Amino acid sequence: MSFRYAYNTRDIKFILKEWLPMDEVLSFERYRDYFSKEDLDTIVDQVRKVAEEVIAPTAEDGENIGALWEGGQVRIPPSFAKAHRFVQDQGWGASNFDVENPGGLPFSVFGLIWEMMAAANPALMPYIGNAGAVAHVVQLFSSPELKGRFLPHLLSGKWGGTMCLTEPTSGSDVGDLLSKAYPTDDAGIYKIKGQKIFITVGDRDDVENIVHLFLARVEGAAPGTKGLSLFLLPKYWIGEDGSLSDNDVQCIGIEHKMGLKGQATAQLVVGENNNCRAWLIGAPPDENGIGQGIRQMFNMMNEARLDTGRMATAVAANAYWNAKDYGKERVQGRLLSAPRSGRVAINKHEDVKRMYLLNKATTEACRALLARCYYYEDVREFAPDKERRKWAQDRLDMLTPLCKAYPSDEVWGLVAESLQAYGGYGYCEDYPAANAARDCKIWSIWEGTNFIQALDLIGRKWMQGKGALFAATLKEIEDFITAAKESAASLTGELGQLEKALKAYQGIQMMIAGYARSGKLGLMAVYARRILTATAQLYCGYLLLEQALIAQKQIELLGPEHYDYTFYLGKIISARYYLNNAVPNVWHVAELVKIGDTSVLDAPVEIFDY
Amino acid sequence: MSFRYAYNTRDIKFILKEWLPMDEVLSFERYRDYFSKEDLDTIVDQVRKVAEEVIAPTAEDGENIGALWEGGQVRIPPSFAKAHRFVQDQGWGASNFDVENPGGLPFSVFGLIWEMMAAANPALMPYIGNAGAVAHVVQLFSSPELKGRFLPHLLSGKWGGTMCLTEPTSGSDVGDLLSKAYPTDDAGIYKIKGQKIFITVGDRDDVENIVHLFLARVEGAAPGTKGLSLFLLPKYWIGEDGSLSDNDVQCIGIEHKMGLKGQATAQLVVGENNNCRAWLIGAPPDENGIGQGIRQMFNMMNEARLDTGRMATAVAANAYWNAKDYGKERVQGRLLSAPRSGRVAINKHEDVKRMYLLNKATTEACRALLARCYYYEDVREFAPDKERRKWAQDRLDMLTPLCKAYPSDEVWGLVAESLQAYGGYGYCEDYPAANAARDCKIWSIWEGTNFIQALDLIGRKWMQGKGALFAATLKEIEDFITAAKESAASLTGELGQLEKALKAYQGIQMMIAGYARSGKLGLMAVYARRILTATAQLYCGYLLLEQALIAQKQIELLGPEHYDYTFYLGKIISARYYLNNAVPNVWHVAELVKIGDTSVLDAPVEIFDY
Repeated sequence: MSFRYAYNTRDIKFILKEWLPMDEVLSFERYRDYFSKEDLDTIVDQVRKVAEEVIAPTAEDGENIGALWEGGQVRIPPSFAKAHRFVQDQGWGASNFDVENPGGLPFSVFGLIWEMMAAANPALMPYIGNAGAVAHVVQLFSSPELKGRFLPHLLSGKWGGTMCLTEPTSGSDVGDLLSKAYPTDDAGIYKIKGQKIFITVGDRDDVENIVHLFLARVEGAAPGTKGLSLFLLPKYWIGEDGSLSDNDVQCIGIEHKMGLKGQATAQLVVGENNNCRAWLIGAPPDENGIGQGIRQMFNMMNEARLDTGRMATAVAANAYWNAKDYGKERVQGRLLSAPRSGRVAINKHEDVKRMYLLNKATTEACRALLARCYYYEDVREFAPDKERRKWAQDRLDMLTPLCKAYPSDEVWGLVAESLQAYGGYGYCEDYPAANAARDCKIWSIWEGTNFIQALDLIGRKWMQGKGALFAATLKEIEDFITAAKESAASLTGELGQLEKALKAYQGIQMMIAGYARSGKLGLMAVYARRILTATAQLYCGYLLLEQALIAQKQIELLGPEHYDYTFYLGKIISARYYLNNAVPNVWHVAELVKIGDTSVLDAPVEIFDY
Repeated sequence: MSFRYAYNTRDIKFILKEWLPMDEVLSFERYRDYFSKEDLDTIVDQVRKVAEEVIAPTAEDGENIGALWEGGQVRIPPSFAKAHRFVQDQGWGASNFDVENPGGLPFSVFGLIWEMMAAANPALMPYIGNAGAVAHVVQLFSSPELKGRFLPHLLSGKWGGTMCLTEPTSGSDVGDLLSKAYPTDDAGIYKIKGQKIFITVGDRDDVENIVHLFLARVEGAAPGTKGLSLFLLPKYWIGEDGSLSDNDVQCIGIEHKMGLKGQATAQLVVGENNNCRAWLIGAPPDENGIGQGIRQMFNMMNEARLDTGRMATAVAANAYWNAKDYGKERVQGRLLSAPRSGRVAINKHEDVKRMYLLNKATTEACRALLARCYYYEDVREFAPDKERRKWAQDRLDMLTPLCKAYPSDEVWGLVAESLQAYGGYGYCEDYPAANAARDCKIWSIWEGTNFIQALDLIGRKWMQGKGALFAATLKEIEDFITAAKESAASLTGELGQLEKALKAYQGIQMMIAGYARSGKLGLMAVYARRILTATAQLYCGYLLLEQALIAQKQIELLGPEHYDYTFYLGKIISARYYLNNAVPNVWHVAELVKIGDTSVLDAPVEIFDY
């Protein structure tokens, strides 16, 4: 036994029923005839049950059997195929990406139930979700003909999907990729030649076909990202009658990874026999050689960035909840504050509680950040008012790099503390912490490394709309502080920390602007990742305090005998811990930025040989 | 190919020949006829060669074959046995622990060459070193008769050794262990009954016998650690004629660990058939039931704590040097500061250089801290002057918890950054970073968890000698600052950071004293681990600056054309990075301590269910 599902749904229900403005979301035309607030508990409970009973049992097959590459074909564990089918059939998979037909779950709900499912087996999730993400791109950007050809199969999960960006010689610099597309006599159909690596679920044996969203450059198009086009490149060619035939797509191997072993990470070679065809999405490159590919791909990419943060949050939370369950049973040592009271369960030790609370507060912070974005997705997509949709899109733009990078940076340290809380058993694969540690490390790298996210934040999002959009995000925090001052009560000190952090953060922005003006652009890069972390801590401090104020009211209302008292008390304690231990890092980073240390920039690369 | 040895010896030679007072060490009677400063380069180069050519090739067998448990017996990879024998025969293994016969390497040298060997295969090292550590305890505490029986075999590495503390029901609280010892008619010989877990190299098939340093309680002795006694418990009983026979020691299994797979972590049951005997070390429990065991065991334990920090440093450094080699070859992206200059090798990117420099500076900091302690070991053991020996022992006492915990805390984050610097390949087992990450996590747990180290620091070391000893450590830093002010030149700003950190640190001590006085002992526990980190950063900041001042002089002397210029420049840049990015954490921790957040203490354990 190594994997164990230990998720608790209470915070998720709190977010949906007490924190997010779900009344607004459920009033949208798309949802109002299908869902009411009363349904939310049931949905969450159902998914919790499926996560534990259907998905979690597959996790060990991922570890023990893994995805195998045999005879040019990936074989996935049979239990993965079954769980994939089950989730698709429930309507919690690809079909939920169908924004043209009503009945799908709100993004706000979908995002949170996916966290619960991801915690049960993170390796499984892209098998389920990627087809939906491809379908969404098809819906947004392609012709009715292509929609008809692809959508039914993608949305049902009968076909799988991938996103193909990275190549052996270009990863972060996707604009340098070498895959080429050549027009054919059939309009919209191109011959493709190229090689892709690190393709998540890039091959599998449980679906009829796989649709690769494939980035390539049409011959003669402009260099760099702007010259790229996006193609629907199926593993098997789809005839007019729907028949499938070979399309010269070869899977030449999969990676041997530290974790996520059930998740095939494929190397693909396409067109080696000059016989690989694909459908162009949208228009061909214009007269200046500018393609539409990167913008189209970013639609899927942004979704994948939220998904990455969600998986990191899920794995950290499940590791933490396992650790705290272990701590109830394991008797060891005496309390520092009461050494004569005899041996106690380790969950009572101060430093063990510190490790739990660090995990609890940080995972709640990440969940809040992500959930706020799921809500923006609902508004962006379905709010009746155009201005409101734009408002939500702007906020989503600002927060997406935080959603991807902050949880995926934190999870490494969080899981380490959950592991530490087991003592020596944490290092043994019989307990789930070691597995979680091995699984989580890729998320700081893929879908744009966390440095890319940090540059996106500082280099683009700070500047978007001449800085007005990011300023609006900070103004939101300022307004919250002003409004909360009278009702903060026992959380007044914490509100003060948030205020101090906000000022310090504005100082960071001014210092970076100053460095940029004086040509010290390198300092921006040197501090970028730390500034991203500080940004997330500031924003999450605000969110956790907002939640804690709700909890404070509930506590006053319900009193200490109520069964929900402990949950609300926990929300307040999470906020106190986070504001007094994580948020102060914002002014610490401000101090570091102020120092403006240039040692990294001054270092000739030769010093690293020593 | 996953493992690759990439060690550079220059910093080690700098430490031995330019920084540590090796003239003093080599003047000690034990060493003066055997070593001169001129020999040091040769020794380091020889060991570097053996590490690469003899030890490193065994690393992959550890991963691929691993230690196996078959038929009640551990089998280690054959290449491990060969490398073990080779190192023992070179005199770089157990024999170096023989403090009674001259010719052994100085601790200062031994510690640093062990770092080089540990980097080549950390899983192998306890097979080699533990016998020596057991021998050292025998030398210090046991009768001439036992010395005669055990020492020759332990020091030659013909027999292995272990330390047996942990049991299924007691780990950190070793005083609660259940193993029992019963006197027999033979004076000094006891029958033992008990079970031990997590015994590193607790069984193996490449040595004639294994000597377990076994903690147990003589029947009727006092409860707690003070009632414990220490035994030499051999796997095979040793007859008067030296013949070996069964001693009722069973290895009932080994752990399935996240890493260090070649290193058997054994579960032992002794005396199940009432037929396990062992020799008591020193005297039996006195009339109050007080045994000598824990004090004796701590001799080995303190050595093991330095060793733990050394392995963490070694693995971090080797991962970093691999990453920077990869970065030379991998071309990807353009420089933020010069986007039009075309694609560059990734080792030129600002954030990649930041990851390297974080690793370089921090591993040099850890190495300096450890090396300072190796030097104190030499003085403590062999200085002619008793006062001087006491002086060194006191300093070693203060620094040991830092040596164990700081490198083993940092290595997790350091290896993560080395891994990140590969991009997606870092997550693949074909490159060495993933393996390093899996290996390193145990070191924050074993030999006393890092929280235990932090309590040792704050609860004991701060108070030792009524606080005079720790104050002397801080005074040393203060004196350094005063003396360096005139010669700091380009490092004046960094010296200022050290001064600021020292003041902040004294503030931390006062605040914790205040909390203790007002009965808030729990706050000490809550902040303990962060204070330990701050302590190490303060002390290492001092050491790196001391080294940088030497480097500064050399640079002035040699000029930029000299082949060693880059090394010295790197030492200065390391210090600048560390003082401006790591050391500021000291005053950050001071601020956190000042906040005095009690959320952890206020949290009822029930909140962690949510």
